[in-house]
Amino acid sequence: MDTANYFSACDKVMKVLSTQGAFLTVKDRTGKVNVMTIGWALLGIVWRDPILMVAVRPSRYTFGLLENADDFTVTIPFSDMGKELVFCGTYSGSKVDKFKEGGLNTIFAKKVNSPIIDIKNARHYECKIVQMSALDKKRLNGQYDEKLYQDRQYHTYYFGKISDCYET
Amino acid sequence: MDTANYFSACDKVMKVLSTQGAFLTVKDRTGKVNVMTIGWALLGIVWRDPILMVAVRPSRYTFGLLENADDFTVTIPFSDMGKELVFCGTYSGSKVDKFKEGGLNTIFAKKVNSPIIDIKNARHYECKIVQMSALDKKRLNGQYDEKLYQDRQYHTYYFGKISDCYET
Repeated sequence: MDTANYFSACDKVMKVLSTQGAFLTVKDRTGKVNVMTIGWALLGIVWRDPILMVAVRPSRYTFGLLENADDFTVTIPFSDMGKELVFCGTYSGSKVDKFKEGGLNTIFAKKVNSPIIDIKNARHYECKIVQMSALDKKRLNGQYDEKLYQDRQYHTYYFGKISDCYET
Repeated sequence: MDTANYFSACDKVMKVLSTQGAFLTVKDRTGKVNVMTIGWALLGIVWRDPILMVAVRPSRYTFGLLENADDFTVTIPFSDMGKELVFCGTYSGSKVDKFKEGGLNTIFAKKVNSPIIDIKNARHYECKIVQMSALDKKRLNGQYDEKLYQDRQYHTYYFGKISDCYET
């Protein structure tokens, strides 16, 4: 496996994730599309494949889409997209067309059905969902449980096999 | 969160993981210690913290230790440790003292109870276990299931908060 391309910008990707965040875009099997802001993701190797893992709570509109989807994309913006990221992290796709209202366009991905966000100076991961597991709340650090799950909305982990990865 | 140190060598780490592999070392609460070879790991951010996730099958001796441990360490060797890694990936800690037989020494970690492997030219991650979840086999890609789980030994995911990370 040639991981060079998948992992070459990993430090930059993590820095962006932990500061402004990234776009998670999903198109489900019925054609519904949504984008949400994420600040959490894991990148690496599992099942001998390059994997990007995202975690989504059941309360999110994106959750319903992911549960009925084959894939997702993650777009890491290297320039300032603070306004768009805050918008996508504040409003729900159940009430608002975030692409229209948030000023974001999508374009076709190369290998998956979910689109990518059409911005320059960004890194895109196209991911095929290969595994989903619910967070086991009985075996969660107590401080995380208390601080981050007062709403009892425990994440599901979505493991995506990176089918393509490139920059625009 | 300053992620620079945690993720600065990520591309190099992934390359080593996907080629020769790395050492996963665990000391449980009773003092039992073991080391195993891993080729799979995910690195990134979850719960607002830097996280390293490893996956271990119930058939492994290390599994029993992890289930009764507070932490683990991962040592990424940047020089050739092929012989030691093959040894640690072939023999079980239930039958063999892999440190003694495999020619590996450990030294105290800085922040966790599990030791690190005492080698030069390596990167060490000290991880406190903050979440464990079983792989949901009902939601696993069919090809992975067929190819990698003929023994039905489905992995448990161990999410470690990176408490320290440095090179020797």
